[in-house]
Amino acid sequence: MIPPDHPRYRSLVTRERLARCAKNGIVAMEGLTAHGRGEAFDYLIGERTTESALIAERTAAAMLLSARNPVISVNGNTAALAAREIAGLQKACGALVEVNLFHRTEQRVAQIEALLRDAGAEVHSGAAEQLLPLSHDRAWCRRDGMFSADVILVPLEDGDRAEALAAMGKSVIAVDLNPLSRTAQRATLTIVDELTRALPVITASCRELPEKDRRALLASLDNHYLLSEAIREMTVRLSHALD
Amino acid sequence: MIPPDHPRYRSLVTRERLARCAKNGIVAMEGLTAHGRGEAFDYLIGERTTESALIAERTAAAMLLSARNPVISVNGNTAALAAREIAGLQKACGALVEVNLFHRTEQRVAQIEALLRDAGAEVHSGAAEQLLPLSHDRAWCRRDGMFSADVILVPLEDGDRAEALAAMGKSVIAVDLNPLSRTAQRATLTIVDELTRALPVITASCRELPEKDRRALLASLDNHYLLSEAIREMTVRLSHALD
Repeated sequence: MIPPDHPRYRSLVTRERLARCAKNGIVAMEGLTAHGRGEAFDYLIGERTTESALIAERTAAAMLLSARNPVISVNGNTAALAAREIAGLQKACGALVEVNLFHRTEQRVAQIEALLRDAGAEVHSGAAEQLLPLSHDRAWCRRDGMFSADVILVPLEDGDRAEALAAMGKSVIAVDLNPLSRTAQRATLTIVDELTRALPVITASCRELPEKDRRALLASLDNHYLLSEAIREMTVRLSHALD
Repeated sequence: MIPPDHPRYRSLVTRERLARCAKNGIVAMEGLTAHGRGEAFDYLIGERTTESALIAERTAAAMLLSARNPVISVNGNTAALAAREIAGLQKACGALVEVNLFHRTEQRVAQIEALLRDAGAEVHSGAAEQLLPLSHDRAWCRRDGMFSADVILVPLEDGDRAEALAAMGKSVIAVDLNPLSRTAQRATLTIVDELTRALPVITASCRELPEKDRRALLASLDNHYLLSEAIREMTVRLSHALD
């Protein structure tokens, strides 16, 4: 049991939850390592939603609301960390929720879909085809789902897939704590923030953003600026670390 | 199978090895997350031994050679990543090798000791007592081993233990890619480098360092300088990331 007054309570509880989900197969072993990389970068932005991340999250809401076929792609880590938050965002923006896995087995897909449904999400399920230009099992998706999406939210994604989706002409919204990753660099919009902090802000923005603000956010989207601001935050924090 | 020409081949192979060792119980689930955090910081120092890390590694050799009772403390991640390198260092500096685990079970201790022996290490084993001023099972060690050490190498350690060992008056050598961690800050000497790069350099230095150089390294040890150099390297790399 982790004592609630531990300075790193939230981070340790999250880590335990992931370890538990790794034991039952929802999270891949490699997903635990990926989570650790995220933790390091989260530490460097001060484990808070920065000002530039907030802009990115509001812009994500504007993109999802303006989309014809918005899709939220969910993998093991996302389901383990944020099934409830995914369900909340779906209600606010009307996106399809579809499972897409790097380490894919039918059993894992079924487990993750069940976890999402228990959390209140409607999952776009059923027979999948190998439609994305990717090797491995990440190619599997539904023709009327991910394949037809114009805007796709890919939290905690791998670089190949973010790149392939962008090359298909889709607007890709990534949530990635590492501003240097290929995913972060190739996405249309990158949210450098921790997933369970980012999703509720996107959801609230979907509910609150006036039409005028949405248009302004879309018109001024500059992902290079957002990434460089995230990097600047990290640099500042690192430089003062030994003060 | 990861293709050997993959740009991140070494890192991916290491990650696979850890995942395998997590499945058979040698590595704790939490150890995978910890490895991921290390990867992020390793990326920020350019996945190479920096000049300041090289000084730290040579100083570590000088400390181990000058010790009366040097001990190398081994946990699951260290054994999974570097059992052979630990055995090599033991031969070069004559330290005791002793297993100490955060997530301790008799079975894990036995598995890790067997892995180390297979790699050529002589393991200081047998009945342990709760001798270190720590809660949890990290307190367990041997009276004539870790408890009596004057210099102790603790690769990939947790902050509490590094702190407790230092408070017992021991000289603590940490290998930690995160220069901001409590382990890094509390150790007598912190090597900010990846373990399988760091250990062979320490081993080679044990073999090659002239007595005069050893004394000079010990006299000029300045851990604050070493940490700030590591941080400076990371800051520089981050700042140029979007160039």
